[in-house]
Amino acid sequence: MADRTWSVYLAGEIHSDWRERIEAGVREAGLPVEFTAPVTDHAASDEAGTGTLGEESEPFWRDQMGAGVNAIRTQTLIRAADVVVVRFGDKYRQWNAAFDAGCAAALGKPYVTLHDPEFDHALKEVDRAAQAVARTPEQVVAVLRYAIEGRLA
Amino acid sequence: MADRTWSVYLAGEIHSDWRERIEAGVREAGLPVEFTAPVTDHAASDEAGTGTLGEESEPFWRDQMGAGVNAIRTQTLIRAADVVVVRFGDKYRQWNAAFDAGCAAALGKPYVTLHDPEFDHALKEVDRAAQAVARTPEQVVAVLRYAIEGRLA
Amino acid sequence: MADRTWSVYLAGEIHSDWRERIEAGVREAGLPVEFTAPVTDHAASDEAGTGTLGEESEPFWRDQMGAGVNAIRTQTLIRAADVVVVRFGDKYRQWNAAFDAGCAAALGKPYVTLHDPEFDHALKEVDRAAQAVARTPEQVVAVLRYAIEGRLA
Amino acid sequence: MADRTWSVYLAGEIHSDWRERIEAGVREAGLPVEFTAPVTDHAASDEAGTGTLGEESEPFWRDQMGAGVNAIRTQTLIRAADVVVVRFGDKYRQWNAAFDAGCAAALGKPYVTLHDPEFDHALKEVDRAAQAVARTPEQVVAVLRYAIEGRLA
Amino acid sequence: MADRTWSVYLAGEIHSDWRERIEAGVREAGLPVEFTAPVTDHAASDEAGTGTLGEESEPFWRDQMGAGVNAIRTQTLIRAADVVVVRFGDKYRQWNAAFDAGCAAALGKPYVTLHDPEFDHALKEVDRAAQAVARTPEQVVAVLRYAIEGRLA
Amino acid sequence: MADRTWSVYLAGEIHSDWRERIEAGVREAGLPVEFTAPVTDHAASDEAGTGTLGEESEPFWRDQMGAGVNAIRTQTLIRAADVVVVRFGDKYRQWNAAFDAGCAAALGKPYVTLHDPEFDHALKEVDRAAQAVARTPEQVVAVLRYAIEGRLA
Amino acid sequence: MADRTWSVYLAGEIHSDWRERIEAGVREAGLPVEFTAPVTDHAASDEAGTGTLGEESEPFWRDQMGAGVNAIRTQTLIRAADVVVVRFGDKYRQWNAAFDAGCAAALGKPYVTLHDPEFDHALKEVDRAAQAVARTPEQVVAVLRYAIEGRLA
Amino acid sequence: MADRTWSVYLAGEIHSDWRERIEAGVREAGLPVEFTAPVTDHAASDEAGTGTLGEESEPFWRDQMGAGVNAIRTQTLIRAADVVVVRFGDKYRQWNAAFDAGCAAALGKPYVTLHDPEFDHALKEVDRAAQAVARTPEQVVAVLRYAIEGRLA
Repeated sequence: MADRTWSVYLAGEIHSDWRERIEAGVREAGLPVEFTAPVTDHAASDEAGTGTLGEESEPFWRDQMGAGVNAIRTQTLIRAADVVVVRFGDKYRQWNAAFDAGCAAALGKPYVTLHDPEFDHALKEVDRAAQAVARTPEQVVAVLRYAIEGRLA
Repeated sequence: MADRTWSVYLAGEIHSDWRERIEAGVREAGLPVEFTAPVTDHAASDEAGTGTLGEESEPFWRDQMGAGVNAIRTQTLIRAADVVVVRFGDKYRQWNAAFDAGCAAALGKPYVTLHDPEFDHALKEVDRAAQAVARTPEQVVAVLRYAIEGRLA
Repeated sequence: MADRTWSVYLAGEIHSDWRERIEAGVREAGLPVEFTAPVTDHAASDEAGTGTLGEESEPFWRDQMGAGVNAIRTQTLIRAADVVVVRFGDKYRQWNAAFDAGCAAALGKPYVTLHDPEFDHALKEVDRAAQAVARTPEQVVAVLRYAIEGRLA
Repeated sequence: MADRTWSVYLAGEIHSDWRERIEAGVREAGLPVEFTAPVTDHAASDEAGTGTLGEESEPFWRDQMGAGVNAIRTQTLIRAADVVVVRFGDKYRQWNAAFDAGCAAALGKPYVTLHDPEFDHALKEVDRAAQAVARTPEQVVAVLRYAIEGRLA
Repeated sequence: MADRTWSVYLAGEIHSDWRERIEAGVREAGLPVEFTAPVTDHAASDEAGTGTLGEESEPFWRDQMGAGVNAIRTQTLIRAADVVVVRFGDKYRQWNAAFDAGCAAALGKPYVTLHDPEFDHALKEVDRAAQAVARTPEQVVAVLRYAIEGRLA
Repeated sequence: MADRTWSVYLAGEIHSDWRERIEAGVREAGLPVEFTAPVTDHAASDEAGTGTLGEESEPFWRDQMGAGVNAIRTQTLIRAADVVVVRFGDKYRQWNAAFDAGCAAALGKPYVTLHDPEFDHALKEVDRAAQAVARTPEQVVAVLRYAIEGRLA
Repeated sequence: MADRTWSVYLAGEIHSDWRERIEAGVREAGLPVEFTAPVTDHAASDEAGTGTLGEESEPFWRDQMGAGVNAIRTQTLIRAADVVVVRFGDKYRQWNAAFDAGCAAALGKPYVTLHDPEFDHALKEVDRAAQAVARTPEQVVAVLRYAIEGRLA
Repeated sequence: MADRTWSVYLAGEIHSDWRERIEAGVREAGLPVEFTAPVTDHAASDEAGTGTLGEESEPFWRDQMGAGVNAIRTQTLIRAADVVVVRFGDKYRQWNAAFDAGCAAALGKPYVTLHDPEFDHALKEVDRAAQAVARTPEQVVAVLRYAIEGRLA
């Protein structure tokens, strides 16, 4: 069988350690995975526009400049990914996470959602187009291990 | 110039009268528009699966059945639309609205968002991929009038 | 809302009256649906090649000629459909039904499967990529009624 | 001429040694091929959902969970393959094999079927969209050797 | 069943009456078909560039101008067609017919070739990607009748 | 032959009467064409954003708002067109005309350029991807007459 | 600038040394090119089906089997190529060369034709969709050198 | 995180040192970027056709030959790029730069424009479809550093 390296994009929440837990689990399992992600430094992300292209006093346009610069990264990496994991945490509205899931779905790219059961009803459309709904980073690792190496443990 | 009928899909919030206001405004302006939308009867939408395919006791799977049946409608109509309008209200998490926007973006289909300024920061990625950000249904009507007939009033 | 006519392709089994039952139910419900289907006359279908292009003594090539002529119809109509319904009956192997489902899935076209629970395990991959799994033609009618008109009954 | 490595996905039956025979033949012929495949451990495959995402008592949903997790692997690898080989054995219904063939056909990806003549009539649609119909793993090896190196023996 | 009108593009040879024979047969059979075709007036076709865009003395560029103008028609109509019929006659090299077949194949559009057996070997690649190989216009009519109405006679 | 209505998008310069001359010529020739175009009222076009979505004092963002609203119209109509005509006049930089040509080229949509020979060198990349280069509106009419009806005069 | 290796597919005539001349010229110029091509051993190519899949007495089906097996190679390599060169020689009808050009055109892949002026009129459609028309293998080398390294000599 | 190399295509103006400044800045920042670009030697670019394919006395056709040969390079590299930067300088009409931007937009590929504020109004359509509008090469470097490594300085 081929020694393929899988590219996995970790979308969504940037305020908990879920990415680190998935990466640690994957490393421990020895899986051939390269992870990509949006910029997870919240402050930097908010200044992505003004910090690169120059000042802008209007908050709306400051956000729009920043979102454009961030999109260069996110759209490129999502399109280059084999699999996307989309995490919904319990803070903020996280519409960008759902937006990324919509992009993945329309591009025919398999994705896994990661969230608590309390959001099941609100996320039903997003979950329905996903290949799997996980509750913990460890379950995501288990899914990747199975998808990549066919092992359940 | 051609007598084209435009198909406009009205995605998102189902708890206020924004669709009616847009439709009334478009009718008053005499624009050649056919509107489509998700099922906006919340109760019916929640029973879309069990009401058509049979009982299911687990809430998670009940939601998944319903989301699938709803997707037959929404995915078909979004792909058939010329333009999508995506409304974010102030209740619920509305991840499906952001998901629809992501689909539209990935399909190269122009969309307009409709929301209050308080959500500007949280919606910056969704707004950035939109062609226009409107604050009122009347602004959406103005955008459609301009896009379809080239008139500003 | 728009007065859209939906195109629904009825794929799969040709040995029971499931198509007639769906069509009758849809007519009774007054839904704006145009149905398309493969040629359901088994004898004609088997002679699709030799009956149009001339004799062929080898069974393998006779089948290949016929399958090509049938594909002109089926591929055109599947690509033109909004929704595909795929029926798996209890006779024959019906690989062409699963093939049609695979085409629909890869084209991003929503489909509904229709089969008895005894096939659930064997059809799990096909069902997973479907938007709905129905057990009776009446459930398919209910799904179409909901998807098209948003009514549950 | 280029020293290209070909990616070949081996879809379908998981109860005989056809994959091993193709791989052995390709190795012996010294062809630059990387093989990929679904998970071929039947027990693991059936537990792909519950073994990674947690318990589920309903058989239907257990299968759906498993099929989703398996699809992460199969859809990624089919899309990454240059050529797909689809094997139909004499046991089980193997609808997933026909589904994979339908996906490959709709994606414009060349595929080879591998099956006994007794299935010719039932597989005529699937065979018609294939580039070749083989009877033995050795014939598949011969096809790959020719396609990759232009040698007939 | 739906009352669909099929669009059939008749590509290739412009020096015999095969188009008229197909159209007469289709009319007689009462099939809902709209035919499209390249410009079949050889003299007009050769002057398509100079007759519309102005003089050009170099034969090579005269041909290139004409081919561009012809392509506006042919590429638009091929993309709009449900089915393409490609005729290879016994005169001239007819590379444009094979080119049109290649376009149809790459676009996933079903096509039927129409030629004498003497060209079978030279056309084997073109025939292989076709859904049917016909010898007479009447066979093409029979194929269309079957594909559209499911009748063999 | 089919009674097809062709959709022709007239892109580019909005300061001369070239659109009217093409429309008059097409009407006189009795061709079945529906024309579409960007908003050609320069003042309205410049206010497309502020006139529909509200005030904006920064010229850069005012332009960006307007360009987004205009794009709803232009992107929809270009994608719906069979053929695009792109006019380059002698005033302004007309980068949007070249941008529209690039879109058409990447979408595989045939287009015709219309400009004076003095721009030949500067437009060589844009002309090269076009199907025809016309010098006068009357030549565009001649191209459409030929493409649609196969007549040279 | 990037150290990119270009993949160039050499389609068409297999009875003269044009491929060797292009390869020698490219090697001499030190260009980073990997060449691919159809099987150029005419006898092997004619037996591609029967030599891999088993005997077939009917010439038509023998050719069809062979064309399918050849297509696994040619379709894979054309789709993987950056640039296609299509050679038309003075023998045989070479419809497969024109077919390959049609595939390349529909896939948006740039191609260069290589043929004598005597075929200019017959190849005008094929040449028009090409990026360049060359008369000698040395000209193709010059085109590749320019396209890859920007040098004219 | 993955050690991805990004491919960045630098389109547009060839008469100032903006490419060198971006490359120097990227090198200094240690970013994993491979740059590609059109041929920037103006004289060579103008002779791309006649210098490779032979003489041509008519300026229009000389330009067309050259533009075709240049397009082999530019179209291949734009399609292979992750990100495109499009520079508009103050000389010449630079329609090819806007054409490249249109291609990128239609292909869903993120691009950054680089130009002085004096062109903001004329470039509003091109800027609107971009992810970022930069004024200096150093800002482009900052955008790439952020997009690739998530660092603002």
